[in-house]
Amino acid sequence: MKNQKKKSFTILGINNAISILESDSFDVSKIDILKKGRAEKDDQLMHLVSKLTFQPKFYEKQGFSQKYPEGRTQGIAVVISGGITKEALPDFSGSESVCLLALDQIEDPQNFGQIIRTTECAGIDGIIFPKHHSAPISDTVLQVSQGAFVTMPLYEVTNLKNAFKKLKEDGFWMIGLENSIDAKSWHEIDYKGKTVIVVGSEGKGIREKVLESCDFKATIPMQGKTNSLNVSAAVSAIVFERLRQIQEKN
Amino acid sequence: MKNQKKKSFTILGINNAISILESDSFDVSKIDILKKGRAEKDDQLMHLVSKLTFQPKFYEKQGFSQKYPEGRTQGIAVVISGGITKEALPDFSGSESVCLLALDQIEDPQNFGQIIRTTECAGIDGIIFPKHHSAPISDTVLQVSQGAFVTMPLYEVTNLKNAFKKLKEDGFWMIGLENSIDAKSWHEIDYKGKTVIVVGSEGKGIREKVLESCDFKATIPMQGKTNSLNVSAAVSAIVFERLRQIQEKN
Repeated sequence: MKNQKKKSFTILGINNAISILESDSFDVSKIDILKKGRAEKDDQLMHLVSKLTFQPKFYEKQGFSQKYPEGRTQGIAVVISGGITKEALPDFSGSESVCLLALDQIEDPQNFGQIIRTTECAGIDGIIFPKHHSAPISDTVLQVSQGAFVTMPLYEVTNLKNAFKKLKEDGFWMIGLENSIDAKSWHEIDYKGKTVIVVGSEGKGIREKVLESCDFKATIPMQGKTNSLNVSAAVSAIVFERLRQIQEKN
Repeated sequence: MKNQKKKSFTILGINNAISILESDSFDVSKIDILKKGRAEKDDQLMHLVSKLTFQPKFYEKQGFSQKYPEGRTQGIAVVISGGITKEALPDFSGSESVCLLALDQIEDPQNFGQIIRTTECAGIDGIIFPKHHSAPISDTVLQVSQGAFVTMPLYEVTNLKNAFKKLKEDGFWMIGLENSIDAKSWHEIDYKGKTVIVVGSEGKGIREKVLESCDFKATIPMQGKTNSLNVSAAVSAIVFERLRQIQEKN
């Protein structure tokens, strides 16, 4: 069940464009290409473009840079409408090893995009985020994810606590990444079964009400003086610790 | 032995300012403060400012925003000159457990800054980077590091290979993070002794000549389809795996 909102997104870059065109999940409404640019010289990309039911629009250099002044286009922009997020969580009751990441109060689109990218590389099965206490999906979020949003399921839920309740009924353990006295070191927790890793923003952390749903608290003890790990770096540490546990088990 | 170049850097933000003023490693030449801004209301910061041998300059809102239009100032800018990098590696021959990170061809200042921040939190002992094949230290690099540059030794060396030669004589093992057939999974490598972790850029990787100096190659096997982990996320995974190994040993 996909989110049917018709908001459109403009995605730049060759890798992003290839990921989108190879997937059948998106409604591609427009493609702009720079004449003689890197994208036009990319055979794989141009083959995918040629299979579309409409023609892309080609631009001279000046027209293209006027339309996309922020750079990093690699000579291609793809406009898609909707289909980025899902509203309903699937039924995980039959699965044995699933790991979801839940974001609470992550407001920086750079961090959000990086987290999508990192978790996709680490084999996480989906990202849950609330409609009202998180950065919305934007061009920046998708751009920074470097195409990872195409394969990573993004569940935008109305209420995080209700989503957790359903997941608990399906056998998930909730692990909140939170610096507190009763938290265990991040590597002392078993991530091999069905888990949801919950992270908050650097400044605000996880909301108290959301934290109440967590069965365990994990902390990454700071070794330096600054005491401030970027949230996407913290996510990287924890999701690759999970991958290590799974690989060592096999 | 500090680098005596007199290039100056402008650092914004309360945490950065506190880190700089608490340290005695920097030559602070100027401080600009926004009247009635967040910085001026911060007692800890204002106490440190009051101990300086010169007066900060206070600005009205309009003048301050004109001077620092990029935002994120939190009402304070500190100008320091030099003293950011070191040229000579210290003598590590008596140490048992030291881990340095070497950067080769990292050209994105955001990534460089994030790596300084992450490694400082993970207890890494220093970052080595070459003068000519890496992003130079800039305001952006320092800003993104969120004050971590104050405590993290940054060794800017003329030749990475020569630096490695000296470190090998001091008993260091070199580990190159490189996706190749003969690489081991990142968690199968022992980081507990004296190690240098070498990373390259996402696009270019580590230069062949530098890779030749590595005793081991480590890889982080990609689990998704995008196959592109951000280099600072990869660094986070590997430096916290090292921290895990050290904590589990004790």
